[in-house]
Amino acid sequence: MSEIDHDSHYTENVQEHLQKVQALLEKHALVESLAHRQEMPRNERHGLVETLLHKQHLNELREKLDSLHPADIAYILESLPIEQRLLVWDLVKAERDGEILIEVSDAVRETLIATMSRDELREAAEQLDTDEIADLAPDLPQAVMRDLFKSLSIEEREQLREAMSYPEDAVGALMDFDMVTIREDVTLEVVSRYLRRFDELPDHTDQLFVIDRDDVFKGTLPLNILLINEPEMEVAPLVIHETITLHPDDKADQAAQAFERYDLVSTPVVDEDGRLVGRVTVNTVVDFIRAESESDVLNLAGLREEEDIFASVWKSAQNRWTWLALNLCTAFFASRVIGAFENTIAKYVALATLMPIVAGIAGNSANQTTTIIIRALALGQISPSNARRLLYKELAISGFNGLVWGGVAGLFAYFLYKDTMLGLVMTSAMLLNLLLGAIVGMMIPLTLQKMGRDPAIGSSVMLTAITDSGGFFIFLGLATLFLIH
Amino acid sequence: MSEIDHDSHYTENVQEHLQKVQALLEKHALVESLAHRQEMPRNERHGLVETLLHKQHLNELREKLDSLHPADIAYILESLPIEQRLLVWDLVKAERDGEILIEVSDAVRETLIATMSRDELREAAEQLDTDEIADLAPDLPQAVMRDLFKSLSIEEREQLREAMSYPEDAVGALMDFDMVTIREDVTLEVVSRYLRRFDELPDHTDQLFVIDRDDVFKGTLPLNILLINEPEMEVAPLVIHETITLHPDDKADQAAQAFERYDLVSTPVVDEDGRLVGRVTVNTVVDFIRAESESDVLNLAGLREEEDIFASVWKSAQNRWTWLALNLCTAFFASRVIGAFENTIAKYVALATLMPIVAGIAGNSANQTTTIIIRALALGQISPSNARRLLYKELAISGFNGLVWGGVAGLFAYFLYKDTMLGLVMTSAMLLNLLLGAIVGMMIPLTLQKMGRDPAIGSSVMLTAITDSGGFFIFLGLATLFLIH
Repeated sequence: MSEIDHDSHYTENVQEHLQKVQALLEKHALVESLAHRQEMPRNERHGLVETLLHKQHLNELREKLDSLHPADIAYILESLPIEQRLLVWDLVKAERDGEILIEVSDAVRETLIATMSRDELREAAEQLDTDEIADLAPDLPQAVMRDLFKSLSIEEREQLREAMSYPEDAVGALMDFDMVTIREDVTLEVVSRYLRRFDELPDHTDQLFVIDRDDVFKGTLPLNILLINEPEMEVAPLVIHETITLHPDDKADQAAQAFERYDLVSTPVVDEDGRLVGRVTVNTVVDFIRAESESDVLNLAGLREEEDIFASVWKSAQNRWTWLALNLCTAFFASRVIGAFENTIAKYVALATLMPIVAGIAGNSANQTTTIIIRALALGQISPSNARRLLYKELAISGFNGLVWGGVAGLFAYFLYKDTMLGLVMTSAMLLNLLLGAIVGMMIPLTLQKMGRDPAIGSSVMLTAITDSGGFFIFLGLATLFLIH
Repeated sequence: MSEIDHDSHYTENVQEHLQKVQALLEKHALVESLAHRQEMPRNERHGLVETLLHKQHLNELREKLDSLHPADIAYILESLPIEQRLLVWDLVKAERDGEILIEVSDAVRETLIATMSRDELREAAEQLDTDEIADLAPDLPQAVMRDLFKSLSIEEREQLREAMSYPEDAVGALMDFDMVTIREDVTLEVVSRYLRRFDELPDHTDQLFVIDRDDVFKGTLPLNILLINEPEMEVAPLVIHETITLHPDDKADQAAQAFERYDLVSTPVVDEDGRLVGRVTVNTVVDFIRAESESDVLNLAGLREEEDIFASVWKSAQNRWTWLALNLCTAFFASRVIGAFENTIAKYVALATLMPIVAGIAGNSANQTTTIIIRALALGQISPSNARRLLYKELAISGFNGLVWGGVAGLFAYFLYKDTMLGLVMTSAMLLNLLLGAIVGMMIPLTLQKMGRDPAIGSSVMLTAITDSGGFFIFLGLATLFLIH
């Protein structure tokens, strides 16, 4: 037991593996640098000792890597700076390359693929299932894909074409073709004997798919049911017909919601004619959910994609440019709005100190509204009938916040500058800009959704643009009307 | 087949169910309002017809609800305004209350529990497994929990105490106690016969847990392996010893990463003495991952918790206040920084139009840095040795961006105001504030992590506070030094 505990207790595991690998890499680097330092006056005996040491560390490292799960090796590769990463990648057994390439993040995969020859890439991809090859395909050179196609069987080619034909966000892109199918006119005993002929069942086989002669999907036989019933029973009466089925064209997002809602492990994918074409399993769905939530967070910060933390400055900068450039444009625009009121500010400098408050708080409040609306949209909770209701509610909240926080801000302005009118202008501007924020925070995601675009992408730039420029305009406009004589 | 397709094709399903329920609710409301309008001059016969119609709609609604999965009812409850929600909740069969309470969001659960009597709540909770009761416990009145404890068996009480003793983010809070255990000195035939004695196996049973006389965990027997081997074989040689085990005190987050990395369906939870105490299944992990990612997005927008979209204005406002109040404080501070330079602005009003650009872009850039650092921290990719390296990298990116975008902003300022010095001040201020943003964007999450706090919470307020105030200070300070004579 203690052995199990030691070997497999996850929490320490991955970090420990990483540290072990790093320690070996450092020893290796030390020997390397010693060797280099003494290169000129070559001492033969020393050189030999170093080469041995050198080899020993690399061997130890290779053994360590052989003992690790592909996902752990992927993690280690992602956590290492580029030179060390490529050294480790060289030491990994070639027949594991494919599995590992599937596991690493897109950005890191690029750095690994860049070092591999056409033949190495083809061999790595050949170890994979067709649905996995399809995942890898966008990163592989055309020539490698051509080689691969030639090396596949007709059925596999068909599957690969099928898997590659769906957009990334469709069920077709999540499905695999590894499944156990049975007929319903046999006994459980026959099914059991059939299963015993397998070397292993496909991962995540929690149910067998029942099909007829024409591959038409009839229902499922959960292993659960197979196991608790007597072997003499026939399959037919045990088949579950009321099961969730997906179409390859369904949105992956909705498939994920189904897995979440109905606690599924696997689910059949069926085409328009009712034929079973594949299945989706929970591990793919977990990866999909994680990737989605990560890209949500990255998009909110204006990062186009996951960044390899060891990527070059140039590469990272590119990942961040679009966002900064967009924001700079909206900032220029807001700056011109202020510019239109230069005369007012010249007469009343206090306005310059207060205007960022008006813009900022409304931006924050509008962002809260948008976040809630985007979530409700994703869950399909917004219908034309309740959209109006929600708008009124958001307006009410903003109105309320406008009075409370606008009031506080008005008092702040009043106490600083002893000017009642300035306080009133401040409060009114806050109130109006918060209301503007509520309307925009609600309308932007709804409009993006209506246009068929992802409401989570780009909402926040537009929002800030409007609450900033709007805030400056409202505040300075009111001030011009009521404070400047 | 078409029947399967029609009944179970998920994508249309949930939305369709909701629409059906809404339609029935509207018919019901129509009859209700007719009845009310005619209440005064009571027409007996009319009244009877309406009551019948009324009843018919409610019956139809009840039947519809009976046919739905608890998760779908939960979804419908979440998507309905409060009065309709409570009407539907009344129509749901009492024996399904427990399952549904587990499925709904926290905010909506509160609204449902508020309408239930002590007895109703106890009965609802009694239908649940102990680990589910533990999930519900924080929302149940003390009195109900006392009643519940009395009604449980000794073993169940022990389990409930155990499940409630772990913090929400520990594996102990995710685990359940539903598992099939076997000994290793029997044949597969014996195991199969044992399984046939079950009415059903626990959900997500992909493996049986092998334990000894003292409940000490020895390994697992995947169903996969049970099914492909001959019945005469003994369990012992087939047991998988190298399996991932969790401790109840492990972080739930790390368990989730293990499920994701190793594609698990279930995994044993083992205490310090090596005894099997429970298991974690993938459906719980999926819910956990989804909840985590949602709370990440909500926290970024400064929402304390998931909001019931039909909650009262007052309740929603409270959910959003802390954030707005915090931001107001930092905005006041930034405002006073500008205030310190009022004389400078009075002499050179153009500064007021340009200063928000300096503050805003650095805020965006710092936010990108923080997002990347938080992600790397969550994955355990940041070590003391590479933290310095990452800081240099972020500084390099910011320096680069400072020159490029600061240069653009400087040109913008120059062309507007035909003042070379102003352009130079603009570019330098952008560069310096972006560098400041990189340092803070990196240091804040690292410091929060070191203090044992979640780096994702609160980073962004602090960040904006510093890049705003810092930006104003740097820009106006430089302007005072170089532009004002």
